[in-house]
Amino acid sequence: MSSLKKKLSPSVVKRLPRYFSRVKALHDEGVEWVSSSELAERLGLTSSTVRQDFSCFSFSGISKRGYEVSGLLKMLEDILGADMQWKVIVVGAGNLGRALTSHDEFVRRGFNIVGIFDADESKCGSRIGTVKVQAMSGLKEFVKKNEIDMGIIAVPDSAAQEVADLLIDAGIKGLLNMTMAHINAPDNISVADSRIVASLQQLSHCMLFSCRRKYT
Amino acid sequence: MSSLKKKLSPSVVKRLPRYFSRVKALHDEGVEWVSSSELAERLGLTSSTVRQDFSCFSFSGISKRGYEVSGLLKMLEDILGADMQWKVIVVGAGNLGRALTSHDEFVRRGFNIVGIFDADESKCGSRIGTVKVQAMSGLKEFVKKNEIDMGIIAVPDSAAQEVADLLIDAGIKGLLNMTMAHINAPDNISVADSRIVASLQQLSHCMLFSCRRKYT
Repeated sequence: MSSLKKKLSPSVVKRLPRYFSRVKALHDEGVEWVSSSELAERLGLTSSTVRQDFSCFSFSGISKRGYEVSGLLKMLEDILGADMQWKVIVVGAGNLGRALTSHDEFVRRGFNIVGIFDADESKCGSRIGTVKVQAMSGLKEFVKKNEIDMGIIAVPDSAAQEVADLLIDAGIKGLLNMTMAHINAPDNISVADSRIVASLQQLSHCMLFSCRRKYT
Repeated sequence: MSSLKKKLSPSVVKRLPRYFSRVKALHDEGVEWVSSSELAERLGLTSSTVRQDFSCFSFSGISKRGYEVSGLLKMLEDILGADMQWKVIVVGAGNLGRALTSHDEFVRRGFNIVGIFDADESKCGSRIGTVKVQAMSGLKEFVKKNEIDMGIIAVPDSAAQEVADLLIDAGIKGLLNMTMAHINAPDNISVADSRIVASLQQLSHCMLFSCRRKYT
């Protein structure tokens, strides 16, 4: 964790998961060295972006060989906390919330969904895999008792801010917002937006106006 | 549709769905006028960004009143195709693909999932709501016959490019990539990435290094 000279810019942070995913795949394939241009091509970036990003965390390549894959993987793991286990809860037990709760990939990546909450009491008590849907009234105590790291907001847009406020009040420091609403949060809280409908609307705009562009 | 003086930049296009969502909510509440500063505050933007964006599609406000909500809504609807119906298929009938297929919000926003495909033949024939899981071998004919607009890629990372190639070959012009893989596509194809795991990894990085930042 001491490998970062300074805080990374948001645009670098947004690229980290993609580097990690690609480098992990190379490592799993037994590849030992990778060049900035190979990585760049696979990720739709330029070589100079890759080199600049890696220099932010003091990771140097070797002339003509490139970057050592296992060292690079370890570095990215450290920076992303990808070798750690994270405790996550979901708020909203609709279709999306339920799917996220049982999404295998999360567990495989260290994001363990240990609770799901819903304002609709008729949903409470039902199970999604091993996780039981709970009432909102129990959220704060659950978060404190289980030392929850992150909350996923999968409720209607109109309830998003209220849920965010509840999660923050309970002590959660990282919020994943799946709604179209904008979440206001204090500076010590991290918020990431993941809006599937917004991505579909970007596509529909492009299809109408032939933008022919990529949105990452 | 003639209201666009020129093609919008990707950063403007990424903000459009958020403007649309907020303006629609104001319209539903019966609000008639909104200022750039009110919109900016609710969306975590600056007033000058809002004004600049709206000037791209020649929509002017009135001094001291701001923008007329119903006119603004109609404009955003036109630009996003939000008043249209889109035909969408999902590839990958895992937890995520199944959830997306039954996600009420998509239908409400005009994105109708009319087919879901999977390489695992044991999944074929089962139903998700009214939609039947089909074998990949039937994809191309289905796309052509039903004039599908968009494809959602919800398969393992390692299969993402192959699925993208199949969808493009079948004639689909818009791809929503839910995987961590980078999709290579010709210039006449629009690709939007929606990576939930990547968003969680951005949060875990921030929690480890106290970046305290927002990722949209």
